[in-house]
Amino acid sequence: MRFFSDNAAAAHPAVLDALRAANTLDTAYDGDAWSKRLDGAFSKLFETDVRALWIATGTAANSLALAALCPPFGGVVCHREAHINVDECGAPEFFTHGAKLLLGEGEGAKLTPEAVEAVCAPIRNDVHQVQPRALSITNATEYGGVYTPDEVGALGEVAKRRGLGFHMDGARFANAVAHLGCSPADLTWRGGVDALSFGFVKNGGLSAEALIFFKPELADATLYRRKRAGHLFSKGRYLAAQLLAMLEGDLWLDNARAANRGAALLANGAAGRLVHPVEANEVFLRVTAEEAAKLRALGFDFYDWGVGEARLVVSWDQDEAAIRPLADAIAAL
Amino acid sequence: MRFFSDNAAAAHPAVLDALRAANTLDTAYDGDAWSKRLDGAFSKLFETDVRALWIATGTAANSLALAALCPPFGGVVCHREAHINVDECGAPEFFTHGAKLLLGEGEGAKLTPEAVEAVCAPIRNDVHQVQPRALSITNATEYGGVYTPDEVGALGEVAKRRGLGFHMDGARFANAVAHLGCSPADLTWRGGVDALSFGFVKNGGLSAEALIFFKPELADATLYRRKRAGHLFSKGRYLAAQLLAMLEGDLWLDNARAANRGAALLANGAAGRLVHPVEANEVFLRVTAEEAAKLRALGFDFYDWGVGEARLVVSWDQDEAAIRPLADAIAAL
Amino acid sequence: MRFFSDNAAAAHPAVLDALRAANTLDTAYDGDAWSKRLDGAFSKLFETDVRALWIATGTAANSLALAALCPPFGGVVCHREAHINVDECGAPEFFTHGAKLLLGEGEGAKLTPEAVEAVCAPIRNDVHQVQPRALSITNATEYGGVYTPDEVGALGEVAKRRGLGFHMDGARFANAVAHLGCSPADLTWRGGVDALSFGFVKNGGLSAEALIFFKPELADATLYRRKRAGHLFSKGRYLAAQLLAMLEGDLWLDNARAANRGAALLANGAAGRLVHPVEANEVFLRVTAEEAAKLRALGFDFYDWGVGEARLVVSWDQDEAAIRPLADAIAAL
Amino acid sequence: MRFFSDNAAAAHPAVLDALRAANTLDTAYDGDAWSKRLDGAFSKLFETDVRALWIATGTAANSLALAALCPPFGGVVCHREAHINVDECGAPEFFTHGAKLLLGEGEGAKLTPEAVEAVCAPIRNDVHQVQPRALSITNATEYGGVYTPDEVGALGEVAKRRGLGFHMDGARFANAVAHLGCSPADLTWRGGVDALSFGFVKNGGLSAEALIFFKPELADATLYRRKRAGHLFSKGRYLAAQLLAMLEGDLWLDNARAANRGAALLANGAAGRLVHPVEANEVFLRVTAEEAAKLRALGFDFYDWGVGEARLVVSWDQDEAAIRPLADAIAAL
Repeated sequence: MRFFSDNAAAAHPAVLDALRAANTLDTAYDGDAWSKRLDGAFSKLFETDVRALWIATGTAANSLALAALCPPFGGVVCHREAHINVDECGAPEFFTHGAKLLLGEGEGAKLTPEAVEAVCAPIRNDVHQVQPRALSITNATEYGGVYTPDEVGALGEVAKRRGLGFHMDGARFANAVAHLGCSPADLTWRGGVDALSFGFVKNGGLSAEALIFFKPELADATLYRRKRAGHLFSKGRYLAAQLLAMLEGDLWLDNARAANRGAALLANGAAGRLVHPVEANEVFLRVTAEEAAKLRALGFDFYDWGVGEARLVVSWDQDEAAIRPLADAIAAL
Repeated sequence: MRFFSDNAAAAHPAVLDALRAANTLDTAYDGDAWSKRLDGAFSKLFETDVRALWIATGTAANSLALAALCPPFGGVVCHREAHINVDECGAPEFFTHGAKLLLGEGEGAKLTPEAVEAVCAPIRNDVHQVQPRALSITNATEYGGVYTPDEVGALGEVAKRRGLGFHMDGARFANAVAHLGCSPADLTWRGGVDALSFGFVKNGGLSAEALIFFKPELADATLYRRKRAGHLFSKGRYLAAQLLAMLEGDLWLDNARAANRGAALLANGAAGRLVHPVEANEVFLRVTAEEAAKLRALGFDFYDWGVGEARLVVSWDQDEAAIRPLADAIAAL
Repeated sequence: MRFFSDNAAAAHPAVLDALRAANTLDTAYDGDAWSKRLDGAFSKLFETDVRALWIATGTAANSLALAALCPPFGGVVCHREAHINVDECGAPEFFTHGAKLLLGEGEGAKLTPEAVEAVCAPIRNDVHQVQPRALSITNATEYGGVYTPDEVGALGEVAKRRGLGFHMDGARFANAVAHLGCSPADLTWRGGVDALSFGFVKNGGLSAEALIFFKPELADATLYRRKRAGHLFSKGRYLAAQLLAMLEGDLWLDNARAANRGAALLANGAAGRLVHPVEANEVFLRVTAEEAAKLRALGFDFYDWGVGEARLVVSWDQDEAAIRPLADAIAAL
Repeated sequence: MRFFSDNAAAAHPAVLDALRAANTLDTAYDGDAWSKRLDGAFSKLFETDVRALWIATGTAANSLALAALCPPFGGVVCHREAHINVDECGAPEFFTHGAKLLLGEGEGAKLTPEAVEAVCAPIRNDVHQVQPRALSITNATEYGGVYTPDEVGALGEVAKRRGLGFHMDGARFANAVAHLGCSPADLTWRGGVDALSFGFVKNGGLSAEALIFFKPELADATLYRRKRAGHLFSKGRYLAAQLLAMLEGDLWLDNARAANRGAALLANGAAGRLVHPVEANEVFLRVTAEEAAKLRALGFDFYDWGVGEARLVVSWDQDEAAIRPLADAIAAL
């Protein structure tokens, strides 16, 4: 049983059905009927006018967002453990043409206004130092924590005061919304977010994320950058169709809730071992090498996370029956 | 009936079936069972050891190939009407970090050794001028012509003599092979080609092309560049599965033959109007604005191509029944 | 006697004197007394508020100007034989992060509004094609011709209508002004020019050009780009001092007039051989290989310029006594 | 009296004399007699065959070196307080096309083999993480400390073992050599250094640094990159002449010794206040705001360095008479 990544899970049947339904001739690129519905569908979800672009990967969505918010000679404030810093092989630097990630600190990969200030304040306002121009946070975070609307809003205040574009890496945005039970609007633009990488692939999608611009004019240059990066698919309808299928009947939220429930189940029996609070679908446990080996011997797959820790990720398609055995095995360690 | 692009066609049912078959949990990125079979499958097809990477779009495949062959300060010799020059919004410049396309001339978007020499010879060998470092041709060409193995080999000689990496944009490589009836090997590495963007999307695929390196070591840096460009899909198995489905039973060749047959059918009745010889699945016709309007009034969609010309592209899924009406309408003009 | 480039000439004594006068302790970078006088001095010369930055080389000045006017995904319309296309090893592509030079045609390396239209008009307004975003002309041109204020103004109209930033490569701007006898203002911003690379090195300077922004706000980002390109000298006062020395008593204009006079002298006796009208300090002659050899045997150095042509460039420090022997030798061929 | 930077000092009279001596017509760019002597002169100094390029600024020299050693998708290990990270506005990212600086820790801005390992060891060897490809140290460091040949050699061992190119930012290399009394060879290539930015501007030069490649083949691509970055001066002889003047009679070493002596003099009377050992020409003092104000009231200029610290830099032209008053004033605080 694999718990190493929600990346590895299957796509939801509704997504495959949507591909089949879209498997007809239509205009190429993003001129098709499905792609044209995206702005409307996401504007409705976010209760404001947005521009919504399909992008095949979260890395590309993040990097295109940052390129829209930060010039080549600027800096992006983010957490030291942010996915954009640690796991994207320099994609932000590639898409922004060499902007610099300015690294902040904070428990559980979360930034606070104070942490952002600690990064920005020492930077002299002269041409010798890279000036901060954007702020990027991940919600849910890389450690399974969640920023609340208030926390986002407080960071939005800092961004506004310092003139920083504000990006949210929402690879697990659905899990954050599911945890909070808030509106997507409250967690984003109402708190000052300018651009959101809204993840679907980890949540039952196949190959489509949505890049949402709450300032619609930011999309204009991004359309060129998307093409230029080889991310304008000729058969774009298959990406748009996936996103629409995920929005249909709030499937995205159902899937995220299921994954969160699974993580909560794992966490329940492992309270003494939790490295971080479990708010989304990731569980970080303190386990010895022997304990980890014991779990693996029982058929459970997961990543070690540094020394003495393990990361377990629950996917949308793992129900209680799938998770209970692992929960029991952890409890029995 | 749409004849404006093979980009707009549906995916082949076998491709969708392959997606469904791959819709199970496996390792993320390119560590899955499907992705691991690509090197072997394409090595067999090309009768030599190759590295084969799935890439979602032809633009990205072309640009990654060029980045592997040309440094930022180098130049890529290509035809003035090459897709990489005309229709990729500067993607080659983006991926190569600013290499320059050095434009050659030739009938039907085809380069000859003489045309390549005409580009290279006037360039002084000093640091003030961008030095040619790569050669890129499109086969089949943007105008539906085909380079024969001999023609490729002659260009390969020039490339070798001048120290140029040799790339083939094979967005319609299948149509070229289908036309020639030659082996894929004869049309590529035996003629000196170092890297091939092997297109499947226009030929019944959904979202996967293959980037083939005949010099396997070129793939090493490309793996990083692919990730860095946001083109390493987390669920890569769905791309690999498409490619394997297209190779299965030579589906790629069957599809291309079907499209070529359709184009030949159109060409037959339009001999006096042909702008270029019809060798692949594209037909360029001389038509007046009135004639074009007449065809459109009958329900046929296609692109105008400059003044007095029209481009008709046949897709893998258009059989004689689909094409005959247009052929007749053209004959009746 | 060398006539191959004004690049090779010595610096004017006043420039060296200025270096010596500046050879005292002052604030580093551009915070010194000399650098601070540049905006004022050039604003006076141009009769409008400008921002003037010292830049060590014309290539860097051109490229920084283009980076200020054109995004990475845009295009710069220029002449096929423009220095930025032919002799800067891709510097514009480097500084703009991959913008594309869109090449126009015209006698004597001069663009006309029609030539610019011929480049722009066929470009579809979609994301697949690089959209023109800037226009760059060279005045005096690479072939020693001069754009008049009216010609500049006509191009400025095109630029305005099409939304193109307008750059002038003025490596030999002084020679153009000297030829025309017009005001620098008439030849630049009054005709719509946004940024000028104002050359001094070919005209008696040592290592300083001026980058002039007629839209002052364009300088802001350029200050970062200059630093980031390693072009913010720590002892900037030595560059500023050169420029101020050249402006002092209109030395820049005197030097240019002297060079132009020399070229006119050469042209006088060679009327039948002139490839281009001689308006600045360059003379392009039709000469056979034998004739060229004969001139070289007499001690005159110059570049061949393709087959059957030679380029002779006169420098600020070559007076009639220096030039007469070559003029006579040409007449005697 | 200014102690805020050796950047602000005047050029040595011999340097100005050299400019005057070079003020004659010669071949442009680096084809002149002076430029051609550089390889030989520096090869002699370093007791091995090197390639030596003049570069106008230290920022450009550092960045060109890094671009020669690290691909766009690679990482450069350096100290968090390295000049390349803190004070070059992202120039390394610009020249390398987005390589990532991987930051290490260490007292006095010095890296140790352990510190380099601490950066590299946690990096997974996969395409998701930027792989270290180069190591860059500053000698003398940003805090006036000096790496010994043994320390350099130990880092060279790490670099070799991990396959990292090894760059030394020698903006104050002369001060390091002067302090150690060792041979330049022992401090560089014998310890594994591949490329050195050898600074002259802070040490009595005007506008020329030397970029030294101990692996001569690294220079080949750099010649293109230098041109492409606008750093190939058309009158390169004035840069080469400066470097030759500085090498003549070991002027570079005399100047550095003088500056070091001055710093030692300041340090002598301030032992209790020293933040870092004084080994080169920089002195970092603990001073209260009141004390700093008192020194400034006496006419001494310097930078505050964070809270409670001040940086004093001695230049080549400040002798005991110039420094004694400040030394006394510090002692009297």
